[in-house]
Amino acid sequence: MLKIQKMISTLKENTEIILPENGLEEKLVQAGKENRKLIIKLGFDPTAPDLHLGHAVVLKKLKQFQELGHQIVIVVGSFTARIGDPTGKNKARKPLTAGEVRHNAETYISQLSKVIDVEKTKIVFNSEWLDSLPFSDIIQLMSKVTVARLMHRKDFSKRFAENTPIAMHELMYPVLQGFDSVQISCDIEMGGTDQLFNCTMGRQLQESHGQPPQTVMCMPLLKGLDSREKMSKSLNNTIGLTDEPNEMFGKAMSIPDSLIDEFIDLTTDFSPDEKEALKQRIRNGENPMNIKKLIAGNIVRQYHHPEAAEHADRFFISQFQNKNPQEQAFEAVSIDSVFPAQRTINLVELCHRLKNGESKSFVRRLIENGGVKINRVTKTDPQEEIELQQGIKIRIGKRGFFELS
Amino acid sequence: MLKIQKMISTLKENTEIILPENGLEEKLVQAGKENRKLIIKLGFDPTAPDLHLGHAVVLKKLKQFQELGHQIVIVVGSFTARIGDPTGKNKARKPLTAGEVRHNAETYISQLSKVIDVEKTKIVFNSEWLDSLPFSDIIQLMSKVTVARLMHRKDFSKRFAENTPIAMHELMYPVLQGFDSVQISCDIEMGGTDQLFNCTMGRQLQESHGQPPQTVMCMPLLKGLDSREKMSKSLNNTIGLTDEPNEMFGKAMSIPDSLIDEFIDLTTDFSPDEKEALKQRIRNGENPMNIKKLIAGNIVRQYHHPEAAEHADRFFISQFQNKNPQEQAFEAVSIDSVFPAQRTINLVELCHRLKNGESKSFVRRLIENGGVKINRVTKTDPQEEIELQQGIKIRIGKRGFFELS
Repeated sequence: MLKIQKMISTLKENTEIILPENGLEEKLVQAGKENRKLIIKLGFDPTAPDLHLGHAVVLKKLKQFQELGHQIVIVVGSFTARIGDPTGKNKARKPLTAGEVRHNAETYISQLSKVIDVEKTKIVFNSEWLDSLPFSDIIQLMSKVTVARLMHRKDFSKRFAENTPIAMHELMYPVLQGFDSVQISCDIEMGGTDQLFNCTMGRQLQESHGQPPQTVMCMPLLKGLDSREKMSKSLNNTIGLTDEPNEMFGKAMSIPDSLIDEFIDLTTDFSPDEKEALKQRIRNGENPMNIKKLIAGNIVRQYHHPEAAEHADRFFISQFQNKNPQEQAFEAVSIDSVFPAQRTINLVELCHRLKNGESKSFVRRLIENGGVKINRVTKTDPQEEIELQQGIKIRIGKRGFFELS
Repeated sequence: MLKIQKMISTLKENTEIILPENGLEEKLVQAGKENRKLIIKLGFDPTAPDLHLGHAVVLKKLKQFQELGHQIVIVVGSFTARIGDPTGKNKARKPLTAGEVRHNAETYISQLSKVIDVEKTKIVFNSEWLDSLPFSDIIQLMSKVTVARLMHRKDFSKRFAENTPIAMHELMYPVLQGFDSVQISCDIEMGGTDQLFNCTMGRQLQESHGQPPQTVMCMPLLKGLDSREKMSKSLNNTIGLTDEPNEMFGKAMSIPDSLIDEFIDLTTDFSPDEKEALKQRIRNGENPMNIKKLIAGNIVRQYHHPEAAEHADRFFISQFQNKNPQEQAFEAVSIDSVFPAQRTINLVELCHRLKNGESKSFVRRLIENGGVKINRVTKTDPQEEIELQQGIKIRIGKRGFFELS
């Protein structure tokens, strides 16, 4: 009995919403009685395969379920991604080809393996059941849900009130996500708190299909490095799960002090006691830098090997704690391999490639705001052609130091 | 040129809404240039195959187009009728079997022949294209329409404001009706004014499918015999196209004086000059009864042979203008053929059968309100068992006089 209570308390750790309140206990008891695995669902939008620490908050909870022997099912939203948003109002939703969906899903799955055991995970594509759904079944499905219910979703009601167009098919998407739960007979659907509405839709549709409604567990949305909004690739405020150790360490060190507690809770794998002790040290007035280093090291250890964390720590000291830029370590970049057969390159393109594909609009803003230097001279014209010569030193933003070789 | 103007003025006669305003002229000119027939659409809901004079207002306009050589296309809403309204809130929309749809369509078509030339009419079923529509096409279709646009339909906005549930699939139906117009490349969609919203949906979808948008022509909704609401079978205030001549004549005579002008315009086939002359006679103070007789006779002549109109006129005089009920003509009803092998029958059932299947709930109310007499004795218990004896006289409401024989 003590064991079950410990299990429940672990699963509830960091969880922000459980619906219904006792839904987790009920599902665990039921699975125990029936001697079966719980089916734990996570939906994945294949338009955005790059995972960051915000996604990891949910994935770590999945990992806990997996370690308890339950069945994780990743539902790839291949149907909706292939349809896209034909209104074209939201560029992020332009339709993907079947090949792009497959490629994104592969990228996603390989990144998943940084947190959960992919071998034990079931991956399904919702186009399997949605592509061939007869229209009459679709009408039956839509008849189960009222317009008023759908309009309760915050973004819908807001847009409706502001006369911002909502296309009819957008209103259908949450119903389809709910139908995915019916198809896999889901016990628990996981998501960020922004998925609460869509996940409860699954409960309603399961009930109308004669299934016990799933429990919904929502994890908090990790704030981005800028501390203002949630971590999101489009806001350029992420730590990616595939970031290099030095990059990961440096980004973690850049969080404002106000985020320290949240990062301790949501990004580290310290035990609850260790987490509490770290927070206490802050409250006792210790220099926040010390605690951030422990967080940054912990993060790097989770996604890379332990030596990488130590190395990143030393690299950070050499670059940032020693304030003299002349002595900073510049990463050597081979002209021949990164810029083969090129003599000159325009500044935006140069920074874009050196920063591992950082978006060109972001790089352009950085240049215009004086954030890029070549041989210590600030360059503000994004279109300037730069000669690719050995030995020139390029500084991009706070954490990018490169020397051509 | 004079001929075209006369044609347009005939087509505009009685028409309440033409959208866009010059849409009729444009379509006629276009068809003339391209030397082709216009495609004139009328949607038919196969749940309600019994046609009345209200429907005839639209059908007569179709007939005018047909006589000008254009192509009438009746779209039977077989898809939606077979799906029905699974929420069950509206009993009228319970799903029909394929057999019921076929049967109702046949009934409808045979009644259509009372107004238009069915041989020259194209009848299509929208399940032909909707049954097999892939889900991805449905999503594309729904993406063309905004929720706000659909919520403009009066009944939707009213229900939404009153928190009366609207199921999602209900919101999809107008889009499907619009898609029917795309499928048949409709030039002009006809309907009652209550169909304006659904018909304009067709314009929008045709445009988004690269077709010239249809013109919408809406005919006024004929008031029912009670003059309060539109003529509708569920309100028991109709003159059916298949009503017997005496019934038809008597019902037409029962309209209140305030409806005379409207009935002259919308139910008779008098010429515009004749119509104007009739209205003038009313304004000059002539007894409205005289004009109603001309209307009633004209209606009977349209749907039965001319002698039937004369006979109905005489029958009406014998029954209603002679106010002594004892001298009224009672229609002889053979016990053996209408009630074979029965000795007694309950009162509701008796009236239901004598009145050609008039709804039992209507008959029950009539009895309870003192509208039924047997041998001049008012009977108010709908469940009373009546002995079926030759010679008994049964009076049902104002126009039902029967004598068992």
